[in-house]
Amino acid sequence: MAPPALIGVDWGSSSLRAFLIGADGVRLDRRRSDQGILNVADGGFADVLAATVGDWRRAAPGLPVLLSGMIGSRQGWAEARYAACPVALTTLAAGFLALGDGVHIVPGLSAVGPDGVHDVIRGEETQLVGALGPGGRGGGLFCLPGTHAKWARIADEAITAFHTAMTGEVYAVLRAHSILRHGMAEPGDRDATAFDRGLERARQPGGLLHHLFSVRAEGLFDALGPAAAPSYLSGLLIGHELAGIGDLVGAVERVTLVGQGELIKLYARALDAGGARVDMMEGEAAAEAGLWRLARLAGLVEGEG
Amino acid sequence: MAPPALIGVDWGSSSLRAFLIGADGVRLDRRRSDQGILNVADGGFADVLAATVGDWRRAAPGLPVLLSGMIGSRQGWAEARYAACPVALTTLAAGFLALGDGVHIVPGLSAVGPDGVHDVIRGEETQLVGALGPGGRGGGLFCLPGTHAKWARIADEAITAFHTAMTGEVYAVLRAHSILRHGMAEPGDRDATAFDRGLERARQPGGLLHHLFSVRAEGLFDALGPAAAPSYLSGLLIGHELAGIGDLVGAVERVTLVGQGELIKLYARALDAGGARVDMMEGEAAAEAGLWRLARLAGLVEGEG
Repeated sequence: MAPPALIGVDWGSSSLRAFLIGADGVRLDRRRSDQGILNVADGGFADVLAATVGDWRRAAPGLPVLLSGMIGSRQGWAEARYAACPVALTTLAAGFLALGDGVHIVPGLSAVGPDGVHDVIRGEETQLVGALGPGGRGGGLFCLPGTHAKWARIADEAITAFHTAMTGEVYAVLRAHSILRHGMAEPGDRDATAFDRGLERARQPGGLLHHLFSVRAEGLFDALGPAAAPSYLSGLLIGHELAGIGDLVGAVERVTLVGQGELIKLYARALDAGGARVDMMEGEAAAEAGLWRLARLAGLVEGEG
Repeated sequence: MAPPALIGVDWGSSSLRAFLIGADGVRLDRRRSDQGILNVADGGFADVLAATVGDWRRAAPGLPVLLSGMIGSRQGWAEARYAACPVALTTLAAGFLALGDGVHIVPGLSAVGPDGVHDVIRGEETQLVGALGPGGRGGGLFCLPGTHAKWARIADEAITAFHTAMTGEVYAVLRAHSILRHGMAEPGDRDATAFDRGLERARQPGGLLHHLFSVRAEGLFDALGPAAAPSYLSGLLIGHELAGIGDLVGAVERVTLVGQGELIKLYARALDAGGARVDMMEGEAAAEAGLWRLARLAGLVEGEG
């Protein structure tokens, strides 16, 4: 077993995941906690880090610590500026924010569209690097479904473009707070037929704001039951996301989905229905691999990155 | 002054508006109350009606009462079935639900799209009839902005098609409950520049779910201030509504907007930017005129309708 070489932490809004990684890149240990930045009082991030991985650090003094995610936002430990896209992975690694005591934060990414409008990523850049694989063998189009879904194009060891879609959050607020909640049961088993109906509806003219009302109207005519409605809404939204992003990235022929659980299965189903070839990678594994690769590119640990 | 001939009540979810109309069609009196159906306990609709217009009824025994709006929904006084679109105004008037004691409810409208998906209207059908004007001189395309915006095509004394867009409700839930609330001040004065930026953004590729995130990202880069953000979001949503509905109704060259206040001014601005000619009618006046016209068509009061 190789000696420890890096502590990597994927530190988001609601949780954190810490990895102890050996000099050969193989994980030695991992921990999870609900101490996401929104749950840390009075800026006590150093204390949370010590409580979570202090024993790892004491056992191997001088071990570098690399953090990614919302911990680098204005509401986090310290603000790590956004690196401007397109960005080479080496540039991303050169942009770490050093906090002292061997702790570094990966910067987020910013992009400006042809119309001058901004987009940002914070945390997913590290998963993208991990999903790319060792040596960057796998460029292409990547999608990270979630509250704010991220789509990114990677080529020649650089993240060349990315786009955010608020699909997951719109789903959540409509379910919890809009009139659509009246015709919906709590999400249970996925209803594939209802999901596909939502996808199909999204392909029709009228736009999302019109299509959303069909959740209500179909319910009034008992054409959509409360148990099926969440899957239908999900299909509507994911269908619109794919159509909109498709207009930006060109034909979606092959996509690597990074994430876990039911959600990436839904995306895979929608992409498959659209004729795309889909690869999948587990989200936590992508974060760990990305932290490792970036640490090597930055020279925090030995090796070629 | 002509004697009273009709009591019309536009009875919605959050409020009601009652009109006492003379035999010549001129309003004699009106009242408003916050006793919308969501504020009426234990089905006490008859009591609310008596408390609101009981003196009018006692002064003119036998006066017909015509109700429109959510009072005819499953959650209202009694469910008035939807009339299927396309529907002639005479058919709508023949479909009143009689509650006894001279009280009638206007039915809502239902429509089924080419893909078999339902849409519904409840209350706006009466405003549409009113906006059409006496004798139905003004067919064409109508838009009633609001929580659930309604678009309708009227020709030859029939409502031939309509479409709902959840624009107002999506705006409200995103402002109140999504991450976008963090970068937004309370709505103040309309910021026309920010509204136009939202409209312009809506014309770009990427789709609404992508564009929504620009409210957040532009805020992070101080390219959109908290005071301007509500207007920008409004422009984004109304722009997407117009684009989506435009795909359904064909080129929007002339529209009658029915409503009031700041909201129809925003729609007028957006439609004007798209090259459409806009007429406007006040929403309460449309409801009153519609109740009067439908009562005549139904023979509740004398005249040709």
